[in-house]
Amino acid sequence: MQITSEALERAIEELAKLPGTGRKSARRIAIYLLKQSDERVATLADSLLQLKKSVSRCSVCGTITDSDPCSICTNFKRKNGIVCVVEEFQDVYIIEKTNEFRGRYHVLGGTISPLDNIGPDNLRIRELLQRIADSEEEITEVILALNPDAEGEATAYYINKLLQNYDVKITRIAYGIPMGTELEFIDEVTLSRAFASRTVF
Amino acid sequence: MQITSEALERAIEELAKLPGTGRKSARRIAIYLLKQSDERVATLADSLLQLKKSVSRCSVCGTITDSDPCSICTNFKRKNGIVCVVEEFQDVYIIEKTNEFRGRYHVLGGTISPLDNIGPDNLRIRELLQRIADSEEEITEVILALNPDAEGEATAYYINKLLQNYDVKITRIAYGIPMGTELEFIDEVTLSRAFASRTVF
Repeated sequence: MQITSEALERAIEELAKLPGTGRKSARRIAIYLLKQSDERVATLADSLLQLKKSVSRCSVCGTITDSDPCSICTNFKRKNGIVCVVEEFQDVYIIEKTNEFRGRYHVLGGTISPLDNIGPDNLRIRELLQRIADSEEEITEVILALNPDAEGEATAYYINKLLQNYDVKITRIAYGIPMGTELEFIDEVTLSRAFASRTVF
Repeated sequence: MQITSEALERAIEELAKLPGTGRKSARRIAIYLLKQSDERVATLADSLLQLKKSVSRCSVCGTITDSDPCSICTNFKRKNGIVCVVEEFQDVYIIEKTNEFRGRYHVLGGTISPLDNIGPDNLRIRELLQRIADSEEEITEVILALNPDAEGEATAYYINKLLQNYDVKITRIAYGIPMGTELEFIDEVTLSRAFASRTVF
């Protein structure tokens, strides 16, 4: 096999490193880009470079942002005394999509996971406590919105224990049967949880 | 929904324009890139820019190349008098992958398609004739490797007719039953073609 364009091969190789992109889709994307205008490709390349250049972490909540503090932390309309604690900044995006929660966030940056050598000090837990203690805005409720796996549960319990010393209401998002499914297809753990967490109708 | 990073949104938007990439995968890629080193992202962006900058068409065969004429056209080992005519430069890559064909290529840049306003003059057919007439290397055989659809067939017939005036052998790649399938699943047109093109065992 003889290659006529090293530049094409290099682009394919780089694109194939992206998640969810095999060599075939990388090739398709590279050939698509070859057919686009110089400007279009420059715009794409620039948007990727800007991504690394302008994006940093919000010093208050820990989510990614172009300006510190982030637009959620500086939005006075979101000053309702409620802070939602999540594992990763992606979770902020997922929750924002629901348009349900109108308070602030606090991104831990992971969960306690002894196997991966991640302890409480590696997460933004100290910052959370400081925020509750020092914040100008009085924080009245902390919602724990961690993933319902072993690490998420452990982290939630740990934070819950620490927060006992503070005058805040601590809540968790509800774990139970997802909407639109049938009980038949739900695992026992979820079903047990749904029973334990049943609410008054 | 409140967005905390315009740069992230812009990158997602640009990535979502790529073929086979919806907003979800674009988001996944952008977040992946955020976690990579500045260098890695710069390498990717540069490879895309270089793609547009260094890649051009080979003036002899019409395939894409970093240097004109391309490495296949200048490879003296491939001087065997055989030229394989294909529709698009992607086909060169596909045929090269088989390591079967060791001659040169000629990329038409499409097929005759009156509905799309593409006539013989829009393709590199004149260049093919000129190549057969003028080339220092004597061309003894032209293999037509066009797609077996209406446009490919029409184009093959058209070129075949033109080449009657030249002293070259004209052949076509075999169209028939693909390897590894069962006759049961083959359409009638392919099966008829396989019968018509049967070879001595």
